[in-house]
Amino acid sequence: MHDQAPYSNYRLTARLVLENKPGVFASVVSLLAEEKANLGAVDLVEATRDKMVRDITFDVSNEEHGKKVLARLGGLERIKLVSASDRIFLLHLGGKIQVQGKVPLKTRNQLSMAYTPGVARVSQAIAEEPSKAYVLTVKSNSVAVVSDGSAILGIGNLGPLAALPVMEGKAMIFKEFAGIDAWPICLATQDVEEIIRTVQVIAPVFGGINLEDISAPRCFEVEERLKELLDIPVMHDDQHGTAVVTLAALTNALKLVKKDIRKIRVVVSGIGAAGVACSRILIAAGVENLVAANRKGIVLTAQGAGLAAARRDFMSCIHRDNPVMSLKEAIKGADVFIGVSAANLLTASDLEQMSQDRIVFAMANPDPEVEPIKALKVCRVFATGRSDFPNQINNALAFPGIFRGALNVRASKINEAMKVAAAQAIADLIAPEQLSEEYVIPSIFDKRVVDAVSKAVARAAVQTGVARKRLPEGDEAER
Amino acid sequence: MHDQAPYSNYRLTARLVLENKPGVFASVVSLLAEEKANLGAVDLVEATRDKMVRDITFDVSNEEHGKKVLARLGGLERIKLVSASDRIFLLHLGGKIQVQGKVPLKTRNQLSMAYTPGVARVSQAIAEEPSKAYVLTVKSNSVAVVSDGSAILGIGNLGPLAALPVMEGKAMIFKEFAGIDAWPICLATQDVEEIIRTVQVIAPVFGGINLEDISAPRCFEVEERLKELLDIPVMHDDQHGTAVVTLAALTNALKLVKKDIRKIRVVVSGIGAAGVACSRILIAAGVENLVAANRKGIVLTAQGAGLAAARRDFMSCIHRDNPVMSLKEAIKGADVFIGVSAANLLTASDLEQMSQDRIVFAMANPDPEVEPIKALKVCRVFATGRSDFPNQINNALAFPGIFRGALNVRASKINEAMKVAAAQAIADLIAPEQLSEEYVIPSIFDKRVVDAVSKAVARAAVQTGVARKRLPEGDEAER
Repeated sequence: MHDQAPYSNYRLTARLVLENKPGVFASVVSLLAEEKANLGAVDLVEATRDKMVRDITFDVSNEEHGKKVLARLGGLERIKLVSASDRIFLLHLGGKIQVQGKVPLKTRNQLSMAYTPGVARVSQAIAEEPSKAYVLTVKSNSVAVVSDGSAILGIGNLGPLAALPVMEGKAMIFKEFAGIDAWPICLATQDVEEIIRTVQVIAPVFGGINLEDISAPRCFEVEERLKELLDIPVMHDDQHGTAVVTLAALTNALKLVKKDIRKIRVVVSGIGAAGVACSRILIAAGVENLVAANRKGIVLTAQGAGLAAARRDFMSCIHRDNPVMSLKEAIKGADVFIGVSAANLLTASDLEQMSQDRIVFAMANPDPEVEPIKALKVCRVFATGRSDFPNQINNALAFPGIFRGALNVRASKINEAMKVAAAQAIADLIAPEQLSEEYVIPSIFDKRVVDAVSKAVARAAVQTGVARKRLPEGDEAER
Repeated sequence: MHDQAPYSNYRLTARLVLENKPGVFASVVSLLAEEKANLGAVDLVEATRDKMVRDITFDVSNEEHGKKVLARLGGLERIKLVSASDRIFLLHLGGKIQVQGKVPLKTRNQLSMAYTPGVARVSQAIAEEPSKAYVLTVKSNSVAVVSDGSAILGIGNLGPLAALPVMEGKAMIFKEFAGIDAWPICLATQDVEEIIRTVQVIAPVFGGINLEDISAPRCFEVEERLKELLDIPVMHDDQHGTAVVTLAALTNALKLVKKDIRKIRVVVSGIGAAGVACSRILIAAGVENLVAANRKGIVLTAQGAGLAAARRDFMSCIHRDNPVMSLKEAIKGADVFIGVSAANLLTASDLEQMSQDRIVFAMANPDPEVEPIKALKVCRVFATGRSDFPNQINNALAFPGIFRGALNVRASKINEAMKVAAAQAIADLIAPEQLSEEYVIPSIFDKRVVDAVSKAVARAAVQTGVARKRLPEGDEAER
């Protein structure tokens, strides 16, 4: 693990046996230089008079390049390639999560309390008073991370097995960031009715449902229907995680440029899960002039009467097949660009057609809507979804704290007030004197984030009447 | 935790503030003696000149008795009852299982490998070659513990929330005994078709399905259909766990009495999940003369032509509403009684009507089919499901090793050969010179059990062609 080096998706470690003669190692170094395979750590495993065993780590540019470099290494004279490993695949071997008991099971007495016969009393108590499941089972702290594999990351519809490594990663983040016990549920169906019914049927074990990587527009119906059917919080993170963090970043960016959210003109590119949710939360937060575009051009205009209509029923205001103007036209004079669409739709010159003090969040992954190095030069505030530029809009800032707060007060829903409270809490973590063009949103490793978000969300849940439990002691008075 | 004391289902700990005067503590002791509430540990929490704070632990006989004793303690002069706790409920607070990440997530590089963008390569690899899910995800080591809550322990149909503490306990046993990551799935439906479809839809995440506490006869169809539909092992433990351990114990008991399994007459009491599975595995193991009874009397006779018919289709040989004789009649001259039914159906005198060297497994929980202290005196080999008598028939001897073995070779099924191999492995753990009337089955805390069972099961899976992976290196040659 070489965490000091810049992150690479394609880092290999090869074990080589080299004849212990001058110039042998140098031939490895020149080969890697020739291949532009950036050399990292070189570890000595074993050395004798005749030979050296070394583990050398290097970055390649893709799978094919890796194979080529390994083949060339194996062909070098006086060198034997023993094995090669890819650290990403190594990290995933055997999966990334495990289930642990919280109490020991070493004696018969312990077993008799945790399992039969003792557990029967606990089952009886829950049968008599179902809400005791929140006290006496994992339900109080568990979230299902549910996907049908139809929209995995930026990759596409790869199905439930391919979704599993992503959902395991999400479960890890839930635990690491918020202490939540999350379990992946990857569904062997992409039928809306079946997804809804399956989640409903497995819901008893869980205190919350995190929907993930379900493609639009199916994700809207799945989430809406499950919210109605279940008495536990349901949130499609691709929508609301992104929307909450976008609102937080925009709130702080507007402070910098001293513009009123009610006066700005916003252009949203992309009307998938994230684009729809971003548009909705911005309108709810006060934006009165917003247009949204798909690949064909502007398909939604929310201003004046259109704004009122969009507030009532956002989806029916989208006129998908009848775009009124192109994205490049729409962007002229706009104050804010929110991109959750595809790579390289705009150039820096396009951005220069926007208003002064323009704010651009180009969040398409892995390649933003506009080339970041060029965009940085022409924008007042520029943000991406990437970690290698300032202002990373990452939904890991939102979902752990949102679910933590909802679980803490046993909320029945995650409602709009709770999401807006989460965005405000994230924005407020940056004090006015710290706020700058390159720091409108805190780091996901900022330890204050989850606590601030969860408290704000819990308070909003209490205030909006969806909490079924009081705030933890001492918290009510805190703010 | 006072694990040296005999286990009690109703053990309370009360915190008392006592005036520091002679005779005050004595009044507590006499009250408990009067109430026959067995006094356990007495811990001093705090002592001043005026008062003593003590935690006293005592056993009561049931919930009502506990309330009464606490009320009386609270009414004693010079004593204040501060709080009282019930250790079983304490142990269950917040649930008994948790999800943990297996690798750290402390740096951006770690996050980038475990989650996006790095994880995308792993998803791609699985999409291209689905069997890689077994290498790169938790599927290789995970089991769903699935219940609809229709037959929870001996209690009955209490629904999915009440089932959860039991399924969590089972998940703990899976981890503690066999290193398996098991997650509870409690279903908000008791419809056979919905149970089957739901399990099928959530199967991608799991390497095996343990069905649990689903009532008969629905459990038979659910298990059979899922075995056909899924390419991962499915086992209803109430059936096959019990059956495997029963066969193991019977194998050893028959060695003691020197009877041939093909020559014995067996009476099975109870034709629920366990009774049907015990009957089937005994017939498969060679029993040629078996009758099974429900509450009304004998409803299945498997001998001669009846045996052949029962082999072909066991369930259709049961003539539920037309019993031919009573259990008490049937037992006359029988060599073996297998009880998986209800408390106190037989007396010791009934057992004396059986053959010489009679073998009686009275496994109804918590109270066996015959009073154990009396039965012990009249049987050559006597076993129960209880831990407070010798020869505990406990399915925790079977299921952890069966699933471990199946997962180790990536078996597509748990077939009859694997179950018989498991029974044989359990029986073989008791060497001939150790074998005795009071030791026909190993303890569930015998560390050799899971390893022996899993190896035997894995070998049987390979031999019967349901393994999709070779045995771990070095194991093939072992036996």
